[in-house]
Amino acid sequence: MQAEQSSKHAHLQEKQLSSQEVFQGHFLHAFRDEVKLPDGASSVREYIKHPGAVVIVAELDDGRFVMERQFRYPIAQAVIEFPAGKIDPGEDRLTCAQRELMEETGYRAREWARVGVMHPCMGYSNEFIEIWFARGLSLGERRLDEGEFLDVFTATLEELLAWSQSGELTDAKTLSCLLWLQNVRSGQWAIQWQSVAEG
Amino acid sequence: MQAEQSSKHAHLQEKQLSSQEVFQGHFLHAFRDEVKLPDGASSVREYIKHPGAVVIVAELDDGRFVMERQFRYPIAQAVIEFPAGKIDPGEDRLTCAQRELMEETGYRAREWARVGVMHPCMGYSNEFIEIWFARGLSLGERRLDEGEFLDVFTATLEELLAWSQSGELTDAKTLSCLLWLQNVRSGQWAIQWQSVAEG
Repeated sequence: MQAEQSSKHAHLQEKQLSSQEVFQGHFLHAFRDEVKLPDGASSVREYIKHPGAVVIVAELDDGRFVMERQFRYPIAQAVIEFPAGKIDPGEDRLTCAQRELMEETGYRAREWARVGVMHPCMGYSNEFIEIWFARGLSLGERRLDEGEFLDVFTATLEELLAWSQSGELTDAKTLSCLLWLQNVRSGQWAIQWQSVAEG
Repeated sequence: MQAEQSSKHAHLQEKQLSSQEVFQGHFLHAFRDEVKLPDGASSVREYIKHPGAVVIVAELDDGRFVMERQFRYPIAQAVIEFPAGKIDPGEDRLTCAQRELMEETGYRAREWARVGVMHPCMGYSNEFIEIWFARGLSLGERRLDEGEFLDVFTATLEELLAWSQSGELTDAKTLSCLLWLQNVRSGQWAIQWQSVAEG
């Protein structure tokens, strides 16, 4: 797909000339690359390197979804989100989805489906977020990371859509998952479930 | 709403203790803040300050939408997106939406509707993106910024949804707009149009 893309959209492509690390913080890792533009001129691109993440749309047997409310410091708001988290080095993405769901909410799932991937801010970050659906849930004990504070609650699809419309739900990854959820629920989009050992 | 939020979710809130600029690039502007966690402990938050942006869902009289394909260097892919762009200092958001639509695609619109706002990566950026719908389009001449290369094309809602399902469309802001578009098109969500002078 990458190769196909490069030939198909070669007139848009930018090529790396050099790359320099410009900031390494506790969390943020920033680079500045010199690039060759499609017209041959050179320019500069600055961006964050991110390990990638997963988001989990976990449906309870009663049709409600497992949600989180978490304070997001950069925007100074407590935000409604589907559970999500960063991939550990070398970690398999399904394993990451299982781990994040269990650590943050206490739920394990018997069935999982990988439905897609999104790019949340590709203008200045290489972050991708894989979207997983989960069902067959059972509740255990959550294990939050130190310094992590979040509320877990459940909501119906109708509530989530109403909050999206009213502006109470503004997280782009959660809105993107709701596009999936609405179309899967209506039967428009099919997904492939797999049974997994409870991890 | 901020005030209401702070009292309602005080048990999640993090408070700024100090703030330090850690990187000022051509585009990226990064900060590291010391914060007080809900349990009284202190921690560090690193994030990008961003001026905010707008995204435009512009519908032609034949029901097709104005789209862009643009190479996004951090993910090294040519990406399908609704037109979008950063707000200039002091710029009104509707003015920004009109400007970006015209500069990038050449289209002006007679009617506009502000439908909502999203936060694309609130874990490490304060960026918000206001969502605007536009209709009553007329085509003029586009004026791309120097070093900006992008293809303009049109697509139906059905095509956009099919590309979302297949994984050809992965931009979270565009997926979030499609949630709006699908619910507006079906009559589930109402939006308020305003006529504006063609700018």
